[in-house]
Amino acid sequence: MMIIMNVDATPEQVEAVVEKIGSYGFKAHLSQGEERTVIGVVGNEPITTRDQFLFMPGIARIIPISRPYKLASREFIPQNTVFPAGNVPIGGEQVVIAAGCSLIEGRTQWLETAQAAKEAGAQLLYGGTFVPYSSPYSLHGLGETGLELLAEARQATGLPVMTEVVTPEQVAPAARYADLLQINANNMQNYALLHAAGECSRPVLIKRSNSGSIEELLMAAEYVLSHGNRSVIVCECGIRSFETHTHNTTDINAIPVLKALTHLPVFLAPSESTGHWEYVAPVALAAAAAGADGLLVAVHPNPEDALLDGNTMLKPERFAALVAQVRAMAGGLGRG
Amino acid sequence: MMIIMNVDATPEQVEAVVEKIGSYGFKAHLSQGEERTVIGVVGNEPITTRDQFLFMPGIARIIPISRPYKLASREFIPQNTVFPAGNVPIGGEQVVIAAGCSLIEGRTQWLETAQAAKEAGAQLLYGGTFVPYSSPYSLHGLGETGLELLAEARQATGLPVMTEVVTPEQVAPAARYADLLQINANNMQNYALLHAAGECSRPVLIKRSNSGSIEELLMAAEYVLSHGNRSVIVCECGIRSFETHTHNTTDINAIPVLKALTHLPVFLAPSESTGHWEYVAPVALAAAAAGADGLLVAVHPNPEDALLDGNTMLKPERFAALVAQVRAMAGGLGRG
Amino acid sequence: MMIIMNVDATPEQVEAVVEKIGSYGFKAHLSQGEERTVIGVVGNEPITTRDQFLFMPGIARIIPISRPYKLASREFIPQNTVFPAGNVPIGGEQVVIAAGCSLIEGRTQWLETAQAAKEAGAQLLYGGTFVPYSSPYSLHGLGETGLELLAEARQATGLPVMTEVVTPEQVAPAARYADLLQINANNMQNYALLHAAGECSRPVLIKRSNSGSIEELLMAAEYVLSHGNRSVIVCECGIRSFETHTHNTTDINAIPVLKALTHLPVFLAPSESTGHWEYVAPVALAAAAAGADGLLVAVHPNPEDALLDGNTMLKPERFAALVAQVRAMAGGLGRG
Amino acid sequence: MMIIMNVDATPEQVEAVVEKIGSYGFKAHLSQGEERTVIGVVGNEPITTRDQFLFMPGIARIIPISRPYKLASREFIPQNTVFPAGNVPIGGEQVVIAAGCSLIEGRTQWLETAQAAKEAGAQLLYGGTFVPYSSPYSLHGLGETGLELLAEARQATGLPVMTEVVTPEQVAPAARYADLLQINANNMQNYALLHAAGECSRPVLIKRSNSGSIEELLMAAEYVLSHGNRSVIVCECGIRSFETHTHNTTDINAIPVLKALTHLPVFLAPSESTGHWEYVAPVALAAAAAGADGLLVAVHPNPEDALLDGNTMLKPERFAALVAQVRAMAGGLGRG
Repeated sequence: MMIIMNVDATPEQVEAVVEKIGSYGFKAHLSQGEERTVIGVVGNEPITTRDQFLFMPGIARIIPISRPYKLASREFIPQNTVFPAGNVPIGGEQVVIAAGCSLIEGRTQWLETAQAAKEAGAQLLYGGTFVPYSSPYSLHGLGETGLELLAEARQATGLPVMTEVVTPEQVAPAARYADLLQINANNMQNYALLHAAGECSRPVLIKRSNSGSIEELLMAAEYVLSHGNRSVIVCECGIRSFETHTHNTTDINAIPVLKALTHLPVFLAPSESTGHWEYVAPVALAAAAAGADGLLVAVHPNPEDALLDGNTMLKPERFAALVAQVRAMAGGLGRG
Repeated sequence: MMIIMNVDATPEQVEAVVEKIGSYGFKAHLSQGEERTVIGVVGNEPITTRDQFLFMPGIARIIPISRPYKLASREFIPQNTVFPAGNVPIGGEQVVIAAGCSLIEGRTQWLETAQAAKEAGAQLLYGGTFVPYSSPYSLHGLGETGLELLAEARQATGLPVMTEVVTPEQVAPAARYADLLQINANNMQNYALLHAAGECSRPVLIKRSNSGSIEELLMAAEYVLSHGNRSVIVCECGIRSFETHTHNTTDINAIPVLKALTHLPVFLAPSESTGHWEYVAPVALAAAAAGADGLLVAVHPNPEDALLDGNTMLKPERFAALVAQVRAMAGGLGRG
Repeated sequence: MMIIMNVDATPEQVEAVVEKIGSYGFKAHLSQGEERTVIGVVGNEPITTRDQFLFMPGIARIIPISRPYKLASREFIPQNTVFPAGNVPIGGEQVVIAAGCSLIEGRTQWLETAQAAKEAGAQLLYGGTFVPYSSPYSLHGLGETGLELLAEARQATGLPVMTEVVTPEQVAPAARYADLLQINANNMQNYALLHAAGECSRPVLIKRSNSGSIEELLMAAEYVLSHGNRSVIVCECGIRSFETHTHNTTDINAIPVLKALTHLPVFLAPSESTGHWEYVAPVALAAAAAGADGLLVAVHPNPEDALLDGNTMLKPERFAALVAQVRAMAGGLGRG
Repeated sequence: MMIIMNVDATPEQVEAVVEKIGSYGFKAHLSQGEERTVIGVVGNEPITTRDQFLFMPGIARIIPISRPYKLASREFIPQNTVFPAGNVPIGGEQVVIAAGCSLIEGRTQWLETAQAAKEAGAQLLYGGTFVPYSSPYSLHGLGETGLELLAEARQATGLPVMTEVVTPEQVAPAARYADLLQINANNMQNYALLHAAGECSRPVLIKRSNSGSIEELLMAAEYVLSHGNRSVIVCECGIRSFETHTHNTTDINAIPVLKALTHLPVFLAPSESTGHWEYVAPVALAAAAAGADGLLVAVHPNPEDALLDGNTMLKPERFAALVAQVRAMAGGLGRG
């Protein structure tokens, strides 16, 4: 880190800072500019001692030099990370299209969705079963029954399945049934959950919080990676802005920014990031064009009867049309 | 709710909407304007059927008429809600000043904080003990030990104590030791937790999420109220904006807006809403001047050694000066 | 508009509102709901009298029924608007790619840019010449000399040219030389300028302000349309959010939302909406995939020496590659 | 500035950067950290050459060391700036309360407002007369006639008067009649206007744009200061956030942040920053409590008939009550 001293910092104040730096075993590197002194702190992660300098007189600001993530950083691992989900390569040449729903409502709805998704050309299914009370109407998921339905859908379609986990305790059972785990936006900084996911052997998809910065998303990924799990997907699903025509604002810049900053696969969830089914297809296409490695698209046989988020869901025939468009576009771009 | 038809909606489309409205037992109230038909839907909470109209042709938009909260609404309950926390009235004439920390680190730190807070004139203590991994450094709270420390601080100071709950299971033990429960910003829409808090007999303080609207905060309060607990405090603690000089942006407008919309007590947490100890006092004073019923101020005997959020914490002497200023100002305004 | 009365509004209060409505020649349409009265106000643009009801007792809220724009609305004009710029159709099948710079620096830089753009396959040129002091370094445009350079570039390349206007007085000279006029983000609500543009015979492109809502952008378009100019392009160029990795946040949702709300051509300016040349190509492709009718891409022979915004500009060879990609992708999607 | 090299930057790349630094007459100061090289650039404002390093291989990021403003910075000028407006000291002990309107509608409305403001205890009047088309309804100011009305109000009340300028040409006539000039939010980055204001002899109040950062506001002040005018007020008037209950979000944190960063007087405009008259008084009090040096409050004898922004305006009796409250509160705080 760099410690920027005040313009009128005294030599004694500079000295005191240098001494404190030394007391942590770091080296101080002074740079005397035209108007002030800047002190570089060299050592192993000096940033962790930042608060200790809080009340020292003469300091103007403290600036970190490195991004706070390393394992997730393309600077340290230039090569794209590619890993399989079932037999589907994630992070490879082809845009992976996942279809599903945030809440598995029951056997018929779910298997119909799975079948339609398969027929349309989806490569991955997702369905929520450990859904917490996600609305005031006290909806919640089917729990273990839902996990069995996940397995049944995999059986029926041959597609790998993904499901959301909400507490650390759910990681083990979910990992027994599902091929991938999913951590939703409101749990992006739930470190106990990230820790548990980091110790499991399934790939994990982490969604960006609607008030989370790109750096905070990468920090969440870093946390999972640091606990041993190297198969992580980061997923943009919209941020909250002043615009009210859509539920969230899709930060499409995040796709190329994430591709530049990290070697991990980058997905987008257009159903959440728009909040309206009419806008899902154009934004899904946009994400694929911008370089996303995959898409999570909400599908329901009868959106108007969906228990949750019906207005974001595509009917199967619209989903099929979208898959065809993504493939045609990718073809045009010479991509899988 | 109001259903706004398209300008070119056909009589058949209007008829179909009217019929569907009838099928739910609601009454349709047609209003033929200069350019389009508007259909009022009269009945008991017609908004719950909104998604059912999603794909009907001829509909431009659907607009809710009432705010989605009732028990929290000043329109339905005009009188201020006042309730005691220990022997301190919350929501009454006086600005209630709470001091504490988001993480009780140990007996010495906590009892020193409590003693200093008491001496400075604080009326309420808060300390976190069921703190989840709230940072990548795997900090977490002391659990039951922390609850005992809470009780010890109450014993030592005579002040009521408040603690955060994170899961529904923590509500019962926390309610045995603490006088009030606290639900933090990232759990504002954790409905299972809100449900449990709604069934307990302790007052509950709910913090606004940094991406949560005022209406969503009131919906969270409504949910607690609807489960029987009528002692709820809503607490502004900053929203995320494009401004980067402070961690969050304190939405001071929210104080008078909340006072207008709800009869519940309204607090502000300036340590969180600014993220820097230098700005805590002026923003605390601002909140009191704007009509806040209470303040949550982070205090630590040695902020530079704090395990969490040290840069937001006041040293005891600064806190004492702040309390004196709030009292002097309130005196000037003829308030307690 | 709809006037929502308070739950406890008295019959006298309702009566007073009804009377006032009548006094403006409007008809009041009462709807007595389960909990409150709602009064529809029927007439010609009743919303213009909204403030007159400000202090009337018993009113909870006033809600507009119609969007505040009509000439720009697809509801009133379902067909896409298509118009020519020179011989290039704007709003038609093909994605129109414009290349240029916000400041024409001089003859060599500008003609080199124009030539490179032409060779790469651009269909439109843009260059600023009435640039106001757009930076503290007191840069400004070449004025009339710049207009002559615009004309020279058209001559040399055969491409139509567009230039920014900043004051109403510049509209006439700009319209003499340029094929299209451009109103930049910070002038989106400069009504005197919009008025002048509305009375000129050249197509006008209006950029969305970085704090402007989609509705406000359409209101700006409406204002130009209402003064007689029916050839208007609306252009997304990024909004300000809390994300700091990019200068603005590209609201890609705005593309399909605008296509749904308006019949006007919709463009995106990826150089501005990202603020970094590395992200321009992916975001340009995203916009085209999402249905944008055109793109404004900043190009410079030597971006590192550019006087303004060099870090957003593509070198000619990168621009050529982008054009090829857009065409390949559009081919894949079966679009021109 | 600091140039952060990539982790895998080659010695040749470092060498090339150092050489380029030398070519501008700056000194390069290398700091070899555990994982990368950081190069300090020492000299006079090296940041102006930043773009020249844009495409050099091996560079990860470039970080400025100093804030980009100096004349406005409290670091360089620790003492509060105080200057007179008429005989009222601005930036001194007392909170200065200004009353007025963004558009002077005519003689009666304006002189009534001025008289009421004077009686209520306001110390400053403001009224817009060079108002551009600030709404689609083609309202605009009275121009020179308005300036005469300003002077008449000063004559009648003895209070200094302030008026908005919109173009550089208006600065001279406005300065002949008014005691202070005002640059509104949408012109915060209009450098030609800031330049002209910087060369005039009247104090200038600059409002923060609703998408402007605190740093950008201070840069606007810097620009005026750098042209010789040392009497500048910076004024918070709300930013755009996702909250929709109020027109803007009052960033109350900005008051103490600005007081810490600059020696210039800091005002707040609660009518604009809330957009609703009901919230003006509490937010005005909040600003005074947070340390603001002054307030701009919109007042109108008949807000329901106001031509502009009627819903933000206080009736004279409410304004008088607010002034009394601010004085009582300031008294409690021992402030003038």
